[in-house]
Amino acid sequence: MSDKTQALNYIERHRQAFLNALMEFVSIPSVSTDSDHKGNILQAARWLVNELQRLGFTNARLVETPGHPVVFAYTDPPLLDSPTVLIYGHYDVQPPDPYEEWKNPPFSPWLEGEHLYGRGASDMKGQVVAALKAVEAIATTGSLPLNIIWVIEGEEEIGSPNLGQFLEQNRHLLRADVALNLDTGMIAPDQPTITYALRGVAAFELRVYGPERDLHSGLFGGVVHNPAQALCELIAGMHDASGRVLIPGFYDRVRPLDEEERRELARIPFKEIELVRILGVPHLYGEADYTPIERIGARPTLEINGLYSGYTGQGSKTIIPAWAMAKISTRLVPDQDPEEVHQQLRAYLEAKCPPTVRWELTAFAGSPASITDRHHPGVRALAHALKSVWGKDPLFRREGGSVPVVGMMQRILGLESALSGFGLPDDHIHSPNERLHLPTWYRGIQAVIEFLLSYPEFARV
Amino acid sequence: MSDKTQALNYIERHRQAFLNALMEFVSIPSVSTDSDHKGNILQAARWLVNELQRLGFTNARLVETPGHPVVFAYTDPPLLDSPTVLIYGHYDVQPPDPYEEWKNPPFSPWLEGEHLYGRGASDMKGQVVAALKAVEAIATTGSLPLNIIWVIEGEEEIGSPNLGQFLEQNRHLLRADVALNLDTGMIAPDQPTITYALRGVAAFELRVYGPERDLHSGLFGGVVHNPAQALCELIAGMHDASGRVLIPGFYDRVRPLDEEERRELARIPFKEIELVRILGVPHLYGEADYTPIERIGARPTLEINGLYSGYTGQGSKTIIPAWAMAKISTRLVPDQDPEEVHQQLRAYLEAKCPPTVRWELTAFAGSPASITDRHHPGVRALAHALKSVWGKDPLFRREGGSVPVVGMMQRILGLESALSGFGLPDDHIHSPNERLHLPTWYRGIQAVIEFLLSYPEFARV
Repeated sequence: MSDKTQALNYIERHRQAFLNALMEFVSIPSVSTDSDHKGNILQAARWLVNELQRLGFTNARLVETPGHPVVFAYTDPPLLDSPTVLIYGHYDVQPPDPYEEWKNPPFSPWLEGEHLYGRGASDMKGQVVAALKAVEAIATTGSLPLNIIWVIEGEEEIGSPNLGQFLEQNRHLLRADVALNLDTGMIAPDQPTITYALRGVAAFELRVYGPERDLHSGLFGGVVHNPAQALCELIAGMHDASGRVLIPGFYDRVRPLDEEERRELARIPFKEIELVRILGVPHLYGEADYTPIERIGARPTLEINGLYSGYTGQGSKTIIPAWAMAKISTRLVPDQDPEEVHQQLRAYLEAKCPPTVRWELTAFAGSPASITDRHHPGVRALAHALKSVWGKDPLFRREGGSVPVVGMMQRILGLESALSGFGLPDDHIHSPNERLHLPTWYRGIQAVIEFLLSYPEFARV
Repeated sequence: MSDKTQALNYIERHRQAFLNALMEFVSIPSVSTDSDHKGNILQAARWLVNELQRLGFTNARLVETPGHPVVFAYTDPPLLDSPTVLIYGHYDVQPPDPYEEWKNPPFSPWLEGEHLYGRGASDMKGQVVAALKAVEAIATTGSLPLNIIWVIEGEEEIGSPNLGQFLEQNRHLLRADVALNLDTGMIAPDQPTITYALRGVAAFELRVYGPERDLHSGLFGGVVHNPAQALCELIAGMHDASGRVLIPGFYDRVRPLDEEERRELARIPFKEIELVRILGVPHLYGEADYTPIERIGARPTLEINGLYSGYTGQGSKTIIPAWAMAKISTRLVPDQDPEEVHQQLRAYLEAKCPPTVRWELTAFAGSPASITDRHHPGVRALAHALKSVWGKDPLFRREGGSVPVVGMMQRILGLESALSGFGLPDDHIHSPNERLHLPTWYRGIQAVIEFLLSYPEFARV
């Protein structure tokens, strides 16, 4: 019986055990953006170290960073003359709020139909466990034909602020032929997808300050610039009616789409009316000269993620608030630079903010966009593996999300990433009731097995 | 010894007892806008009923309304051939939030220098207790030369939604010559002030809805109109750069200021630089063609009282929020109509809101502005009383705040109000660390005694 058949039989026999492991992992509230969860972050990292040690990676350990630790392990001693795959993942998750919109508590994973629900089930604890179980299946029933390096970080959802330093400091232990990154999804359960371009991100908090305390709007309304109003005025100036960003210089470095790529992207099956239905919006929005697929994948955006000011309780409170706050994030495409965008936003505020209020801008960790070489052996091996499980060629697409590590690995390690994943567009990632489609997940485990077993041939060519 | 001298001696002897009573009253968190405080509202109302019964108003009672009850009492049997003064007040207070900005808990009143601190100390529990204690001083040391009707409501801070109905239903018991209303302040401790015009108010909550749930800004940024952005765009369109309101029709009914009144208002001592310092703003703001005094007193405004949308916690969360909310209130001047302004705002939203989002507008109780006849005997008696205590003529001014009951009493009872009060501009009403200047408060009690004892003469003329 071939290694592959044995490994596939192993996963058949362990479907329930795999699911139990995933539910255990999802039940750990490893929210990286909220310092109250520091303990849960460690708990999730230790859970991974145990799993890896069970698989024979006896050097599995936590590597401390100024933020949350990186889970690190590698084949030791290495198989000489065999290629090396670096498997990347993250064990942190988005905050669950708005909490009250969850059907069940976000960290008490539950099954419903063909789905597992819970924060992180799809993004990306499900993907990490898929890789672990694929390696377990091969290692338990036979032996791995290649070297594996595990790098599983705890700060992806906050922009991987400390991963770069980790990669720098451990460069000598991170020599690999390709990185397998399952943090991007597929466009439909029957259509495997490889992502070759990702947007970058730059995130900010903008505060506008008016009077030193909340004021009675009757006694002072008419002589003070209301900071909530001033904040809205600044935000309203950031887009034109078509959704084009008006921050001066924002589009200067945006790489134009050539006709060939536009034709390729146009092949992605997409129904505007479907998207309107799924999202529950009255109409779509955005730059008129670009298709929705192009706007999501190949165009930058600026989004308001949150607003807060003054009185937000029941009824009315007639005050002029002392200050107002907005969370703002931008999605970037090649060749925009997060720090340059930060400076452009600052320049916009300096030019636009009236002398009647004060403003303060905080920048969070940003990352540039990235594009992967589609002809890299790792990408070809992944395409082969997906086709062997789904019986059809994967679709190549640009994705709107951001995976900072891809760019970092290119810059710091000269390492290309093969990007896919087994999450679906309606998994509600970053939203209440996040879920994972289990039949697709089990197929994904098969695909990772196929990739790991076949990669050495592709690398050899 | 004259009634007046005896009454004044009485207050000298009872300064501490009066203060204790006020502190007891202020310690009851009678927040009317928040239904969680229903019990405290009743507690405050019952506290007043006890006080009034102690003063001999044996018919003092709570009159139920669809909202919070009205405390009601009157001289019975009435003194025939004696005039009647209706003393109006409210026992509800503004919400204390932002709670964390208070130096001590808002409902644990504390003394500091010449001030008593606590929510409601100035607006208007201090004023209500001043009236109670003035009546106590006269009644205990002699006898009241006039009939008194007490109407103390529990919904002033939410726009007196049920007071009109109370006035209608009890019209026969509310026949009076003048209403004494101490819910307006003075411009400085050494300058007694009578308010002859008040702004009205219309308050709203505006919600803008986008996608049916929060979305990942990477996966969907570029095809969905961000509702927080759309809300800001709608709000930004409500003012021009000079602070003029752009809601069509908003100024149509605004009564223009004539030159004589502008000259009078210009006599009010006012230093722009002082106001900038007190409020802690970099610069003042507002319609260039009007002085700050005119903008506060004689011009309408539209204010954003609060904003809420999406993620407001630590760090960043890259979502497109499902919805966004703004609390909006307008201050109105004669002859604007709150319901008409409501319809104007609705029409603005219908015209301006793009088809990419949905909106919903809720209107809270509103009230029109009011102007009182300065030559009414009650107003003249009040001017006399203030002069006799402060030794100088009171200043007549328009105030920016809203006291809906003044207009209601004019419309429903044909009753004019004499408006003053012993709160000061830096009492921080509706703000954290609200306070009352005690020396001014004790003078205020003397002034009310003077008013009640001298009013019969003015009424007789």
